[in-house]
Amino acid sequence: MIRIAIAGYGNLGRGVETAVSRSEDMELAAVFTRRDPSDVKINTPGVPVLKLDEAGAMADKIDVMIICGGSATDLPVLTPMLAEKFCVIDSFDTHADIPKHFANVDAAAKKGGKLALISAGWDPGLFSLMRVYSSSVLPDGKDYTFWGRGVSQGHSDAIRRVPGVADAKQYTVPVPEALEAVRSGSAPELTTRQKHTRVCYVVPEEGADLKAIETAIKTMPNYFADYDTTVNFITEEELKRDHSAMPHGGFVIRSGKTSEKNGHVMEFRLQLDSNPEFTSSVLIACARAVHRLSLKGERGCITMLDIPPALLSPLSPEDLRSRLL
Amino acid sequence: MIRIAIAGYGNLGRGVETAVSRSEDMELAAVFTRRDPSDVKINTPGVPVLKLDEAGAMADKIDVMIICGGSATDLPVLTPMLAEKFCVIDSFDTHADIPKHFANVDAAAKKGGKLALISAGWDPGLFSLMRVYSSSVLPDGKDYTFWGRGVSQGHSDAIRRVPGVADAKQYTVPVPEALEAVRSGSAPELTTRQKHTRVCYVVPEEGADLKAIETAIKTMPNYFADYDTTVNFITEEELKRDHSAMPHGGFVIRSGKTSEKNGHVMEFRLQLDSNPEFTSSVLIACARAVHRLSLKGERGCITMLDIPPALLSPLSPEDLRSRLL
Repeated sequence: MIRIAIAGYGNLGRGVETAVSRSEDMELAAVFTRRDPSDVKINTPGVPVLKLDEAGAMADKIDVMIICGGSATDLPVLTPMLAEKFCVIDSFDTHADIPKHFANVDAAAKKGGKLALISAGWDPGLFSLMRVYSSSVLPDGKDYTFWGRGVSQGHSDAIRRVPGVADAKQYTVPVPEALEAVRSGSAPELTTRQKHTRVCYVVPEEGADLKAIETAIKTMPNYFADYDTTVNFITEEELKRDHSAMPHGGFVIRSGKTSEKNGHVMEFRLQLDSNPEFTSSVLIACARAVHRLSLKGERGCITMLDIPPALLSPLSPEDLRSRLL
Repeated sequence: MIRIAIAGYGNLGRGVETAVSRSEDMELAAVFTRRDPSDVKINTPGVPVLKLDEAGAMADKIDVMIICGGSATDLPVLTPMLAEKFCVIDSFDTHADIPKHFANVDAAAKKGGKLALISAGWDPGLFSLMRVYSSSVLPDGKDYTFWGRGVSQGHSDAIRRVPGVADAKQYTVPVPEALEAVRSGSAPELTTRQKHTRVCYVVPEEGADLKAIETAIKTMPNYFADYDTTVNFITEEELKRDHSAMPHGGFVIRSGKTSEKNGHVMEFRLQLDSNPEFTSSVLIACARAVHRLSLKGERGCITMLDIPPALLSPLSPEDLRSRLL
């Protein structure tokens, strides 16, 4: 059994706990938190909840530590710190900062003689794999990533910071015409506005100026100004009833030529009922691979691009060849 | 530069030649044939065409040999034979015989201290990767592979053996309703007949009994009897004009649950203008990975399931992380 620990018990941490409970080759060894452990109620009986500071003492009882924190402030500190003592996995997703984070984690893991995997999940993660496979097979081509239809936490948070807004959910939606143009293999040039629309469900505070809220959202730089944005005002009850789930997904599509006359399209699509639960399932499969690579003597930092796919599966190499190849 | 050799110069061999000419980090070192080399005209100036028997003498001038033969009789003999002297790649696609072929090639490659990759391409190959990724991430689920719309060589050949048939092309076509049912995540049970239809374009010999041909095709065991098959009779000119291309493609779709209430769908789709050219492009990317793994000291037989994705790309690990991750 692979002994998994979870550092950070939010949506993602709970998803990892569920995924571990559904994996026959894994068991949950501990949950670590920066909160008061007595305030954290987990779903797995008999598993200790401990202060993150005390993690070091558990090093010989844990095979892989899955760090379930935010990319903005948690992971840049936690992952290098824990990578010295544990084989770790995180889902760091600030694309621009990946090289720096990689270097920090690599140094820490090598210092401690451990293996670390950063930026696991679906984007970065499975989508990255598809970009690498498709660009390797069709070097003379162009790829596109579309996200959605799905809830963007970052955009929902940005709306909640607008004065007069009590609560909000934002959906990122691919533009169907853009998707079809890409699928046709015509390799179109698409602006930000042409690729995605943004649909907002906003609960206003009592007496708020709805027109002002709508304008503030639609003109918000980076988040909304470059998109066609729709703002729908709804009640708190409607938000709870219709928008509590965390669906997401998207598309990676590459079209390319192998000769003057022959073109090809490769498409990968995800349609997810729950973004954190699916991401957790990816992390769990990665934990299996990290554990196996660590036993083989791999050290330092890697990403999903470095994992032989067979190592993600609970099946033996023989079974994989006879059943899935 | 990675020095590539081609063994067997048919559709696939020509595709590999084209793909090598479009790869900046590869060059064609030689083409080997079992025909009289003076009968084989290749498209790359200055590259020798040699008898396959003489390949051994070129061992120090070749990094990877790509064996472009048929799975029925060529590859079971050629791949183990050549794997003793070269790093080799083949596209062996008789699913049921993969374990035996793997064992033979593994023994030969280990004996010669070489690395061999079998069953590369898109199915087996990219589709196998998708089956492994999706079943690893969604263990509680069900996957489906659909092929087409595309030309099946095996089925076209089977029709050509029917008395009274001068020439023929057969298209395998996924049933749209089955695809939609699978995409919905409902995990339907589908019979062979419900998944694919077969559409045949047949050029009859002069004076042939069309009704007898149609019956012979539609009742042919294994190939057509279990499918809804349409037979269209056309002229040789029409066959040449409308059915000379070798398009193919298909879908790997897995749906699965991560908890009682949350389900997800992963879909991978290929739409190919030319099956042999696309397959060649996959083989070329694999050649890059085999060369790199061989330099690292890997020996014996592997499949695409064993290749870290990053090794398929001409980009450096740093570039991959900053640009594609």
